[in-house]
Amino acid sequence: MATKDYKEASVIARKRRAANIAAYYKPPTWKEEDLPKNLTEFSLKSGYYTNDELAIIQSEADVILEKIRTKSWTAVEVAQAFCKASALAQELTNCVTEVLYAEAVERAKYLDDYLARTGKTIGPLHGLPISLKDCFVTAPHPSSIGMAAYANEPLQKDTLLVTILRNLGAVFYVKTNVPVAMMMAETTNNVWGECRNPLHKYLSPGGSSGGEGALIAMYASPLGVGTDIGGSIRIPAAWSGMYGIKPSFGRYPVYGTKSGIPGQEYILSVNGPMARSLKSLQLYSEALLSEKVAPWNYDHKLLPIPWRKNVIQPPGRKLRFGIIGIDDGLVHVHPPVERALNITKAALEKQGHEVFAWSTQEHEALIKNLQAAFFDLGGGAIMDLLKPWNEPIFPCMRGYALAAAGGEGELGPTKMRMMTIRRNELQKAYLDQWNATATDDKDRMDGIICAVAPWAAPRLGQTQQNLYVGWTGFVNFLDFCACTFPVTFADKNLDKPRDMKTFKQLSDIDGRIQADYDAEFYHGAPVGLQVVGRRLEEEKVLEMVDVVAEALKAT
Amino acid sequence: MATKDYKEASVIARKRRAANIAAYYKPPTWKEEDLPKNLTEFSLKSGYYTNDELAIIQSEADVILEKIRTKSWTAVEVAQAFCKASALAQELTNCVTEVLYAEAVERAKYLDDYLARTGKTIGPLHGLPISLKDCFVTAPHPSSIGMAAYANEPLQKDTLLVTILRNLGAVFYVKTNVPVAMMMAETTNNVWGECRNPLHKYLSPGGSSGGEGALIAMYASPLGVGTDIGGSIRIPAAWSGMYGIKPSFGRYPVYGTKSGIPGQEYILSVNGPMARSLKSLQLYSEALLSEKVAPWNYDHKLLPIPWRKNVIQPPGRKLRFGIIGIDDGLVHVHPPVERALNITKAALEKQGHEVFAWSTQEHEALIKNLQAAFFDLGGGAIMDLLKPWNEPIFPCMRGYALAAAGGEGELGPTKMRMMTIRRNELQKAYLDQWNATATDDKDRMDGIICAVAPWAAPRLGQTQQNLYVGWTGFVNFLDFCACTFPVTFADKNLDKPRDMKTFKQLSDIDGRIQADYDAEFYHGAPVGLQVVGRRLEEEKVLEMVDVVAEALKAT
Repeated sequence: MATKDYKEASVIARKRRAANIAAYYKPPTWKEEDLPKNLTEFSLKSGYYTNDELAIIQSEADVILEKIRTKSWTAVEVAQAFCKASALAQELTNCVTEVLYAEAVERAKYLDDYLARTGKTIGPLHGLPISLKDCFVTAPHPSSIGMAAYANEPLQKDTLLVTILRNLGAVFYVKTNVPVAMMMAETTNNVWGECRNPLHKYLSPGGSSGGEGALIAMYASPLGVGTDIGGSIRIPAAWSGMYGIKPSFGRYPVYGTKSGIPGQEYILSVNGPMARSLKSLQLYSEALLSEKVAPWNYDHKLLPIPWRKNVIQPPGRKLRFGIIGIDDGLVHVHPPVERALNITKAALEKQGHEVFAWSTQEHEALIKNLQAAFFDLGGGAIMDLLKPWNEPIFPCMRGYALAAAGGEGELGPTKMRMMTIRRNELQKAYLDQWNATATDDKDRMDGIICAVAPWAAPRLGQTQQNLYVGWTGFVNFLDFCACTFPVTFADKNLDKPRDMKTFKQLSDIDGRIQADYDAEFYHGAPVGLQVVGRRLEEEKVLEMVDVVAEALKAT
Repeated sequence: MATKDYKEASVIARKRRAANIAAYYKPPTWKEEDLPKNLTEFSLKSGYYTNDELAIIQSEADVILEKIRTKSWTAVEVAQAFCKASALAQELTNCVTEVLYAEAVERAKYLDDYLARTGKTIGPLHGLPISLKDCFVTAPHPSSIGMAAYANEPLQKDTLLVTILRNLGAVFYVKTNVPVAMMMAETTNNVWGECRNPLHKYLSPGGSSGGEGALIAMYASPLGVGTDIGGSIRIPAAWSGMYGIKPSFGRYPVYGTKSGIPGQEYILSVNGPMARSLKSLQLYSEALLSEKVAPWNYDHKLLPIPWRKNVIQPPGRKLRFGIIGIDDGLVHVHPPVERALNITKAALEKQGHEVFAWSTQEHEALIKNLQAAFFDLGGGAIMDLLKPWNEPIFPCMRGYALAAAGGEGELGPTKMRMMTIRRNELQKAYLDQWNATATDDKDRMDGIICAVAPWAAPRLGQTQQNLYVGWTGFVNFLDFCACTFPVTFADKNLDKPRDMKTFKQLSDIDGRIQADYDAEFYHGAPVGLQVVGRRLEEEKVLEMVDVVAEALKAT
């Protein structure tokens, strides 16, 4: 392709997407002004789906697998229902990039034949549609990661995770939208455009796995895979009211995933599942990280740690949580998030769990180092891809342009080593702080409960001027693991704005973010929080979230 | 201390060492020309030791622990015997840096009292003297790592490993000699001087954990801890005829260890035990990495993988080994090493194990990248420490000086990312090559058997001009694990020089190394090899070495 114009690249990519959808489905179109705030509700009631399709798309992964296994549904029926749903989700939210309907149906057909012929499923994910963030390569489809440079480049080799999941029975049918280089907290780029939140159309679905969040929240995917280097799974998961786990590096296979800053290993990018049901995350992890699959034999970065069950011992014991309150030392949360924290604390205490204040004394240093690393180590990489295509730089990514302009000489081996020493010191200090929660008669705390972002979900474009990923990024900096859970929705009657006359801002951005809160506007925004575990405690984090979810249910 | 003169720093350090030894022991001195080649044999027959002391120092770790536990020996007796032995080992080989006799006896006394009072040992290493490479901090003693800058600097905080081992019952009595910044394959520096091989005094004990190798080979330590970033445990272990394991990163605690290139994480430095007995390595690993000790709760870099037993299943099954022959594509081994490879192959095949040729197709790239990384990432760090003290640069370290002179601008974020991408590609390619050994009816191979170095053990100073760590360094580059084992000794009657008229050198250094072989001179040099396992297969590597050692015993 001769063009080096991002607009032309965008036109080509969008035409391909539209044609691939149109070949199978023609979702109805509406006037924007006729659409309600909640697009998910609207879609389910729109008459677009048959009752059978509604039953399929509203089922969670475990039910879908069971129905296919017992031949109540065929894999083809299931695949077609989700393909159809994704076409509508795309129309309403712009959450899709590459469209894989033809191969999805073909694969589903193969699986149905296999089951009919052998009486067995091909693997634990037999027939499950799984949506993929754009960075997972399903050759020959391009993997734009939100940049013109890659938008129309055919690829030869599947990401390892894709190969493994396919062998386990997964059906891939769609890839999902991301921000430029996957380095924003909302989902917009010069190729595919902006994705919005299906639960509240004026809000962002978050990012960078925002297309995933929107698709899943639209009931157009039972399970998706996102990636997270500063919050990119948890932010969209929380903002679309679902569960999403950011593992520590080395658990879930990463080999062959497209990256915006390849070779950057100061802060490690990871991937993990997102879904409306916690059980789906567990089911996925158990299938993927079994002794039998042993992905560590094929991904040289993986650790030979099979998925463990019932790690909280003795079962049912009371847990100890540290909770980070309404600010992390730099930025306050909005009132709906404050209420979610209070609800969660009360729910846990009612069940006899301990919840005490957790100090964020190290967070300012963690977050400063994280932000500097993204810019300094990634600026050159990203600008080298954007410049030849004349892509405009989104406001929140100006730091990358500035760092790139600074040149390579600014950060040599010695400064890089100093950065690494500092990171290691901070990681050790945090671990020590955690260990210090042990008392004479009590083991150290089990996890941290905290916000995922200052907002429930912010208005579209908000993070362009006020990007703050401190609430998630500290987990990446520490290589800890964390999982989100939904708590409530913003309520104009309950979540009154703070009195800005007496509000003491911790930083300029804190003031700007808090000033943006508008109870009326944000009404209905989903509010999620996260449970943070130590490094490589993925199983425990999911079990802790289960405890929290049960406690919330009981209130 | 006002001085910035390395000679003064050296005088101060050596005086301290001499005084600390003299306060407790006065080993006899000899004329150099009266000493035989084998200093170990000489020391045992010298009359310096009582029979009781000889019994103690020639016992392996398991026996020592058992004798103390059953009160046949006191911890004080044992500590004193090893202190006394280390004084002689120092006199004969120059293997010691810091002398900790006073606190060793004090700690041993405490342990004896504890056992008498409670009837219990304090932990699984109760009373075991463990020698430490100079980089492990035992505050307040300095940790010179072979450089004037650190030679006399008192330190405040113990290395985490030191604290853990002490809590398990270990008794520290001596720290051991290393080369400058621990970045040579032999043990010499401007502070403490040169260490030599106790089994053949004209040979090098190797490096960088060369003081450990010499001390243990002198029966002056039952178990020592070394570190390895390019071969620094395995080279001295092989050259002094013992077992030494280089683990993958993340198994054995590393926090708080002094490094020559702090913050360099492109090639990861690790530590591991060295001993004359394989059982000692297993005993140490099992004690240190137990669920109870759980060092991963205190070292943020550690993986929560407790030490596993009997990982080769079913027990006694026949193993599949790839073997690297007499060259790795760049350098040939000397004739004694070739014979050791043949002995080992024959011994394994006799027991029904499979041994087939392993291709080193990736080694040239691995080794080039490894060497470039050491210089480019470490040059500034090391030269910043050496220059203010006017330390002369040893010939084999000129690459660091050159890289430092190149300046920081030579290697910015983009080049660093490219290096990382290349490293990852090579790691993945090697794993794929390993996986490709699987056949329709056979699992992939279990391990690689290969040389540790071109030489059995080279003459002193040889590696200053002909440094080659490709035989060990590829394991570090891959973050695989490996353990050495002794095979035989160079024999002038069996190991005839190659015919240099027909010898086809693979590189200049290959020609120089091979030309240096002299059957008469090298007679008696110990010859060791290594078994290499994949990443995080430490338990399997030790079990494989056990199989090899048993096979060798049976021939």
